[in-house]
Amino acid sequence: MNLPAHTPVSVALVGASGYAGGELLRLLRSRTDVAVTRALARSRPGEPVASVHRGMEGTTELAFEPLEVARLDGVRVAFVTLPSGESMGIVPELQRRVPIVIDLGGDFRLPDMDLFRTYYKKEHAAPAMLGRVPYGLPELFRHLLPGSSVVSNPGCYPTAAILALAPALRAGIVDPQGIVITALSGVSGAGRSSDEALSFSEMNENVRAYRIGNHQHVPEIETVLGRVAAKPVAVSFVPQIIPVTRGIYCTVHARLTGTASTQDARELYRLAYKGEPFVRVRESVPELAHVSHTNFCDIYVAADARSRQLIVISAIDNLVKGAAGQAIQNMNILLGVPETTGLI
Amino acid sequence: MNLPAHTPVSVALVGASGYAGGELLRLLRSRTDVAVTRALARSRPGEPVASVHRGMEGTTELAFEPLEVARLDGVRVAFVTLPSGESMGIVPELQRRVPIVIDLGGDFRLPDMDLFRTYYKKEHAAPAMLGRVPYGLPELFRHLLPGSSVVSNPGCYPTAAILALAPALRAGIVDPQGIVITALSGVSGAGRSSDEALSFSEMNENVRAYRIGNHQHVPEIETVLGRVAAKPVAVSFVPQIIPVTRGIYCTVHARLTGTASTQDARELYRLAYKGEPFVRVRESVPELAHVSHTNFCDIYVAADARSRQLIVISAIDNLVKGAAGQAIQNMNILLGVPETTGLI
Amino acid sequence: MNLPAHTPVSVALVGASGYAGGELLRLLRSRTDVAVTRALARSRPGEPVASVHRGMEGTTELAFEPLEVARLDGVRVAFVTLPSGESMGIVPELQRRVPIVIDLGGDFRLPDMDLFRTYYKKEHAAPAMLGRVPYGLPELFRHLLPGSSVVSNPGCYPTAAILALAPALRAGIVDPQGIVITALSGVSGAGRSSDEALSFSEMNENVRAYRIGNHQHVPEIETVLGRVAAKPVAVSFVPQIIPVTRGIYCTVHARLTGTASTQDARELYRLAYKGEPFVRVRESVPELAHVSHTNFCDIYVAADARSRQLIVISAIDNLVKGAAGQAIQNMNILLGVPETTGLI
Amino acid sequence: MNLPAHTPVSVALVGASGYAGGELLRLLRSRTDVAVTRALARSRPGEPVASVHRGMEGTTELAFEPLEVARLDGVRVAFVTLPSGESMGIVPELQRRVPIVIDLGGDFRLPDMDLFRTYYKKEHAAPAMLGRVPYGLPELFRHLLPGSSVVSNPGCYPTAAILALAPALRAGIVDPQGIVITALSGVSGAGRSSDEALSFSEMNENVRAYRIGNHQHVPEIETVLGRVAAKPVAVSFVPQIIPVTRGIYCTVHARLTGTASTQDARELYRLAYKGEPFVRVRESVPELAHVSHTNFCDIYVAADARSRQLIVISAIDNLVKGAAGQAIQNMNILLGVPETTGLI
Repeated sequence: MNLPAHTPVSVALVGASGYAGGELLRLLRSRTDVAVTRALARSRPGEPVASVHRGMEGTTELAFEPLEVARLDGVRVAFVTLPSGESMGIVPELQRRVPIVIDLGGDFRLPDMDLFRTYYKKEHAAPAMLGRVPYGLPELFRHLLPGSSVVSNPGCYPTAAILALAPALRAGIVDPQGIVITALSGVSGAGRSSDEALSFSEMNENVRAYRIGNHQHVPEIETVLGRVAAKPVAVSFVPQIIPVTRGIYCTVHARLTGTASTQDARELYRLAYKGEPFVRVRESVPELAHVSHTNFCDIYVAADARSRQLIVISAIDNLVKGAAGQAIQNMNILLGVPETTGLI
Repeated sequence: MNLPAHTPVSVALVGASGYAGGELLRLLRSRTDVAVTRALARSRPGEPVASVHRGMEGTTELAFEPLEVARLDGVRVAFVTLPSGESMGIVPELQRRVPIVIDLGGDFRLPDMDLFRTYYKKEHAAPAMLGRVPYGLPELFRHLLPGSSVVSNPGCYPTAAILALAPALRAGIVDPQGIVITALSGVSGAGRSSDEALSFSEMNENVRAYRIGNHQHVPEIETVLGRVAAKPVAVSFVPQIIPVTRGIYCTVHARLTGTASTQDARELYRLAYKGEPFVRVRESVPELAHVSHTNFCDIYVAADARSRQLIVISAIDNLVKGAAGQAIQNMNILLGVPETTGLI
Repeated sequence: MNLPAHTPVSVALVGASGYAGGELLRLLRSRTDVAVTRALARSRPGEPVASVHRGMEGTTELAFEPLEVARLDGVRVAFVTLPSGESMGIVPELQRRVPIVIDLGGDFRLPDMDLFRTYYKKEHAAPAMLGRVPYGLPELFRHLLPGSSVVSNPGCYPTAAILALAPALRAGIVDPQGIVITALSGVSGAGRSSDEALSFSEMNENVRAYRIGNHQHVPEIETVLGRVAAKPVAVSFVPQIIPVTRGIYCTVHARLTGTASTQDARELYRLAYKGEPFVRVRESVPELAHVSHTNFCDIYVAADARSRQLIVISAIDNLVKGAAGQAIQNMNILLGVPETTGLI
Repeated sequence: MNLPAHTPVSVALVGASGYAGGELLRLLRSRTDVAVTRALARSRPGEPVASVHRGMEGTTELAFEPLEVARLDGVRVAFVTLPSGESMGIVPELQRRVPIVIDLGGDFRLPDMDLFRTYYKKEHAAPAMLGRVPYGLPELFRHLLPGSSVVSNPGCYPTAAILALAPALRAGIVDPQGIVITALSGVSGAGRSSDEALSFSEMNENVRAYRIGNHQHVPEIETVLGRVAAKPVAVSFVPQIIPVTRGIYCTVHARLTGTASTQDARELYRLAYKGEPFVRVRESVPELAHVSHTNFCDIYVAADARSRQLIVISAIDNLVKGAAGQAIQNMNILLGVPETTGLI
């Protein structure tokens, strides 16, 4: 890798101690055109970033700094990886100081206060921004990103579910009501955790569904897909934790409205994602391991003639395409560099 | 457990080298009323059973014998754990010599030759028996077992799926068409395997759906549930292998026909399984670990008002309630001993 | 197992909410000669035991009671599974009320206060008892158990390490100094834990050595083996956590003093453990899976002529032979029932 | 990443279908200065490389070619990842056509025919080369690499063991005899495998030692360390497979000859590896996860005063520093580009 002629773009992590922060560091470390220059976190000020992300020792000299926005002067891109509910208080100020803010939390993904209150159990601190922050799923909304100073990075489940359903809903080949989504998540999706229920002894050889019917990703999926379908979409969503560290494996069933065959559906998806560097419409069933540590979303689609259902399976790495990788994809777009830079 | 006044019932394993055979040995070893006296297998004649089931060393003196039915004279119960397609050739002869034959394979589960041919890709060797062998799911068909000389032990996925759906279908609260089943299986469900795709390196941190739409358990589920519902049932079934050794975790969606609430549905299931020693209708979401190494089937049911779906989650240990444990449950019934003997 | 003519022996768990407590419940539940009648715990008084040990639902009606010794009148056996440092305060009182007390913690395993203080970082609350409580490793000290009212159940690592070394040290074929022990433990060895370092995301695909040179099991191993060897024994002990739930896999190197061959050593071990129901001296290398969910200790021994080392590998299930199973083995001895009752 | 001014260096994989081949592809895919142009394999000629390395789909257009050396004209670097015993037949010819050959197998690691015959159970096909091919462990032998046309890439266990012991042996602070090495390996170390013993169901929740005392890496470790120590070195080596996909976790005990403290030893190791980009001498105990997917070797060293042992723990990713990453490190040296290119 050659040294760039110009100074690298200065990037800050706001909330740098979690898994998404660590993944951003890993994905960005070989970039020569951007450089992570600041790592803000709620705790451990002054300690090396490598004391938390211990695999990074020897690859970064960064130390954690207090979570003070004033420290970000001169920074061009800020990735916010604070827990949901914490970024809405800081993003408005960030936006005034940093040209590009990419929020990986859920605070700016829903279109209105009511949905936010219902699913996040909080009042929104910056309600005026709701509905105005572009949803950073480039495969659907790339055109909305340029010029934005804030981007809301999609949730991990929604990334997998929306990419699985968008082509079929846009084309109208499935009923937007009664969609069933069963999605398996690696344990890292819960973030760094001291929850006994997520301990190795509890999760190994285990599977556990959770938040059936009231997961905060339900309105995110329905809202975004509703825009795609141009009509209301209703999903039944059953998330399940399985004993893998990384990955989302999403199985979707939607009632076929017509007589589309597997070949028809596959052709539709191929066309929909033609030229997309990170979506692979596959002939064979996706496997989590095929997307692990990559920014790919693998998709398989089949029409089940017997049950009149379109079955779609999508797989992503929750920490990459479901978080840090997609955030970098969004940054690349906003910086005007090739979208795949550092990601393939 | 009572010390039997008489000689223990003599039990034989026919096909003793696989995981189901090993699990039968483990579950039966502390029984004093029955004793495994013979272990027939296709290979390794003369070798100790503990040379294959190595954890059993010191607990059994059995050696493998050739797979010859003549060796079973004097045996009262034979468990057949041959691969599907191999038991249909041997069960008719077995039936003439052994009073109780419990077949753990798929050969006698479907009601007719056509379905068998379509899904098992073979002609049936004993077509006259099809439709006449009771399906050994005691929670639904206990009354049909006494007096039978052959019982067909249910498949692992069907056990979980049928128990999850039967009460709702029988009561008519869900549409028998358009049922969606996503089921996760531990890798032991594939049996002892030298398939590279099932190697640790390939399955760890992986998930893989397979046989979407054409798994041989689909007609088994539909046929049995059709009897329960007294009308045709159609399911869309997506089995997936996950990186656990044991377990089936089954998520079912079925369209509600009326306005049943979660409480209504739960009450319905409670009543349906009242007194059943091995079905636990739970208030909280099942976990695979809660049923591991047990004969329980844990069931959770919820009515999702938003999507008008009944959501049912069921969990079993595929080697116990999904195979060896259920086979012993069937044997207990046929022997007239308490159904839970050796299983709780 | 005989149906007891009399009321079953009443057993209490003191500290019933941890993994060892759960394993005791599981192992005892099919016994007819003993019955767990009380489950005392520091927290959750009044709640069903099955609310914590959720796999037990439907098999026990027990509820947690406060940790008050007065509740144990009429109880004949108490298993104490409190964290190390907590049982020494309660065992003296327990001893006055309950005929048989089996302490699974470390409080009574070391022979004197100084060692206890050094390794447990606490003053001992019942120093007069130190050195007087028999060490409940039946394979070595079975003769000391009858008549004892308190037994100190060995630690998990010491069980594996001591059984691996005792025959060689007793026979004097290895140097008692410079012994090297590398031992792998499943994560359940740390107990129920909300330590982030033991979360699934941190432990999966990971190995972590810990407490090198100062683990509290070092003096336990050295003291007990010193008694066996009748001279001081010094070990270098490196425990490591690996991503399995259950098991201890222990590799021992000790310098050969003479010219013993592998066959000599194996014969020595065979003789040493002849008639022991739970020790299997094997021809092939042990595997953790072979002892999982059993009370066996599998041992493999080889003399490495090149390096003049005796190599011994031992494997146990840390929750069974390393805790609850061995405690039951001790109880069986003290009750005068066959030692293997409920364990094979 | 900037486009290089010149044509990229042409690289070939000889034996491209295994895990090491896949890892080479992954590690090289973002390089702009080198390009994998050919992938030779024993099977599947004409099929896309991504049909085997399925995660690579969309990142490579390569197809497998027959294993014919004539196809490599114009290639500058060949990585040979054939099974041990197969590269010795092809490397001599390769050497005549390709300027740089890096053999990842074991065929050229031992210094003479006798050792090779003893441990590999074969006659050597190119005995004249034995002892003349540099051993590509750059941290010890970097100075021998420039000018070489063939490099023998170290084995995975030897990489971890040699880096753990070299500084202490070179400084003479430990006895070169009686060294004890217990090493844990991820299952991928066995390569793509259809061995039932390596199936997920057999390896999950399992540990298995193997080839105790006769592993082919023993003479490799002893030979290389003998050169470092300038006297004969003897190790007792117990390799064990654990249920992780990637990694080697190596624990070494060596008798201290003097009174070196932990601080002395650590300082010695710091100095020995000063400036080494891929060796991290750490204050805290290494974890496999910290080196996973990296080319780092993490090392921890402690002097155990009680047992007079130097304890060293080293951790690597077997597929990176233990195979593909180290091979690329060697290539970088031979190409004269910065050694860390593409590896940090």
